[in-house]
Amino acid sequence: MSLATNLAIDPARLWDTITETAKIGATPKGGVKRLTLTELDAEVRRWFIAACEEAGATVTIDDMGNIFARRPGRDNSLAPIAIGSHLDTQPTGGKFDGIIGVLSGLELLRTLKDSGYETTHPIEVIDWTNEEGSRFAPAMLSSGVFAGVFTKDWAYAREDRAGVRFGDALGEIGFVGAEPCGQHKLAAHFELHIEQGPILEAEGKIIGVVTGVQGMRWYEVTVSGNDSHAGSTPMTLRRDALLATARMIEVVHGIALEHAPHAVGTVGLIEARPNSRNVIPGETFFTVDFRHPDDSVLAVMEKKLKERLAAVADASAVTAEVTCIWNSPAVHFDADCVSAVRQAAEQGGFPHRDIISGAGHDSAYVAAVAPTTMVFVPCAGGVSHNETESAEPGDVAAGANVLLQAVLAMDAKLAEREPT
Amino acid sequence: MSLATNLAIDPARLWDTITETAKIGATPKGGVKRLTLTELDAEVRRWFIAACEEAGATVTIDDMGNIFARRPGRDNSLAPIAIGSHLDTQPTGGKFDGIIGVLSGLELLRTLKDSGYETTHPIEVIDWTNEEGSRFAPAMLSSGVFAGVFTKDWAYAREDRAGVRFGDALGEIGFVGAEPCGQHKLAAHFELHIEQGPILEAEGKIIGVVTGVQGMRWYEVTVSGNDSHAGSTPMTLRRDALLATARMIEVVHGIALEHAPHAVGTVGLIEARPNSRNVIPGETFFTVDFRHPDDSVLAVMEKKLKERLAAVADASAVTAEVTCIWNSPAVHFDADCVSAVRQAAEQGGFPHRDIISGAGHDSAYVAAVAPTTMVFVPCAGGVSHNETESAEPGDVAAGANVLLQAVLAMDAKLAEREPT
Repeated sequence: MSLATNLAIDPARLWDTITETAKIGATPKGGVKRLTLTELDAEVRRWFIAACEEAGATVTIDDMGNIFARRPGRDNSLAPIAIGSHLDTQPTGGKFDGIIGVLSGLELLRTLKDSGYETTHPIEVIDWTNEEGSRFAPAMLSSGVFAGVFTKDWAYAREDRAGVRFGDALGEIGFVGAEPCGQHKLAAHFELHIEQGPILEAEGKIIGVVTGVQGMRWYEVTVSGNDSHAGSTPMTLRRDALLATARMIEVVHGIALEHAPHAVGTVGLIEARPNSRNVIPGETFFTVDFRHPDDSVLAVMEKKLKERLAAVADASAVTAEVTCIWNSPAVHFDADCVSAVRQAAEQGGFPHRDIISGAGHDSAYVAAVAPTTMVFVPCAGGVSHNETESAEPGDVAAGANVLLQAVLAMDAKLAEREPT
Repeated sequence: MSLATNLAIDPARLWDTITETAKIGATPKGGVKRLTLTELDAEVRRWFIAACEEAGATVTIDDMGNIFARRPGRDNSLAPIAIGSHLDTQPTGGKFDGIIGVLSGLELLRTLKDSGYETTHPIEVIDWTNEEGSRFAPAMLSSGVFAGVFTKDWAYAREDRAGVRFGDALGEIGFVGAEPCGQHKLAAHFELHIEQGPILEAEGKIIGVVTGVQGMRWYEVTVSGNDSHAGSTPMTLRRDALLATARMIEVVHGIALEHAPHAVGTVGLIEARPNSRNVIPGETFFTVDFRHPDDSVLAVMEKKLKERLAAVADASAVTAEVTCIWNSPAVHFDADCVSAVRQAAEQGGFPHRDIISGAGHDSAYVAAVAPTTMVFVPCAGGVSHNETESAEPGDVAAGANVLLQAVLAMDAKLAEREPT
């Protein structure tokens, strides 16, 4: 396998670019709040397009708002080798989650332009729309449509908690592109991302060679009791939806512990109605997030969830409606892409290890339609989805260099296979 | 004791008035949403003032927005005998809580006007501001200032969850009166109210002779953990504020059960941050409402609450800050007022029983500065603070007639005492 090992990205330029974009939606605590399809999302999208064009790329947008910035190759009849991630963030997000994946792609475009290096395939940098899913559930909505997991119409109909439809919000910021989502062919897809977990840091590794993504299932639960007066309703006559919900949260935690060490279970969002100090809550809405590398274990966890929440509801004199709104099976990445990353890490002399992603990523969906893998770098304390999320400039640069070498290696490897 | 037993209120007129005002803030489920100091509150206040003036009363307003509608007596140098309650409601409130107390007062004014009956004391009907406390905590804020429990400045500084100050909201709807709150003397204060509990209905009683109000304490709790990624943070490394809160809700419930049958404990309001499906909640805010007829038992419940929430916080790797924001001691009503109500119920031939109020009422505070008591009538299933709250027209009429006879009896009894 031939490697263009003489090429390297510009660490200072990459870091400056990360710092610059972090100003768009910057929070007082040093994080970033850039919810998908808000004006701040639109602002960073416009900045990204301008920067890619300046680096010699041509930009197209599909009808899910996904942005493709293409640098021509020697043979532009070939599908591009893509570097993709997302520029949207959590409500209290950091400067790195998703963002370094897109900006390292931009840095690759700049590096290739400066060196005049010519790839066989076109190279593309992609910003996937609504990876976070915190405003519009589920997460990775647009890469999901790209991979055929969801239909565009279904995606357009997703609503945020205020009742705004995804399709309307996308039109509102002016990012409904002409290209039908999913028709855009990719020869390969690479994604650089922070680990969002504590493993690399704990083991002193700089590069995580990601072999796959664990399975994920999201649920919505509505608990119905009866709202009545907090002062004059005897404890024995209550139908307290929040008390029942408290017991259900403990159940979710318990199921995850029963499948240690790999299972995780989280109730991240809760609403109580009428949510008044002196009224017993008559209704609650909450979400459940279950993850495990083995889909069969997730099936067992789901069975336990439905049985136990029903039991808690009965015992608490309320009813509970449990709906699975998202099921993302475990993913195994492309062997050639994974070995390209592993070899790039070795040749770069970076301490590395194979790892399974605990978080969901656009690559998990794209893997269904193109050879795909990811590169992880450590984040401090494994903390992510948090304003204090941080990563070392040297680690991010190492990840971008591994990304560069892996992309060039795949460009060469796939070129050998092309009919001449 | 002389009773004007020939007088009686007009049941149909009273019921029509209740139905008419229920249109102001009516909800699709048949309830009323008329949060204090909103435009809907202002609308019902304007309606109330016009109706009282039409019944021959003169209206004054104090600087907490409390409305006093006075019908002159034979000796207007005497302090008035008052009939007071509130026209504000819960977010999902009913047509009766507070409202029948004010509207039965209006019905008394109309009845006295029609009959030309002349009382010795002036008769006043009062609408107390922000009894519910669901927008601005604590409840009974303005009767509390009236009784000297709170200062006006402290009350003005209370904020709703959106950060709006009580004083600003009061000015916004134009109900900051000239009279300093608390300077308005009362010879006595009566309040007709639905029981908001199941006891009268269960025992087939129509009238509850209210001898006092149980003690109440409100707490605010802020739980701080660490918000991090729901997929890649191992269960063992989490500091989940919502999981800890779930355990605290169970603790509140347990403490109330330990002091059965009279104790009640409720978590009515909860907020989680950032409240995103795939982020472990790093912080929560919730409220606790404890009530018991015996203040010494409440003190024990508070001690248990603080000890056990601290223990749960330690065990859950979070911190919890518990603040008691309101302490309303148990109240014992005026013996003369209570016997006037009991006698009126007997002479009216209404099945009755003595009862302690489980809910807070403006009368609980007014009792500190004027001879006070209350009259309860049943509500279906004891349900209140709920859109389905309902009461029988016949029971409400019975309560209004008992109120009328008790007021006239106290007018005569106090007149005997006056220096001539």
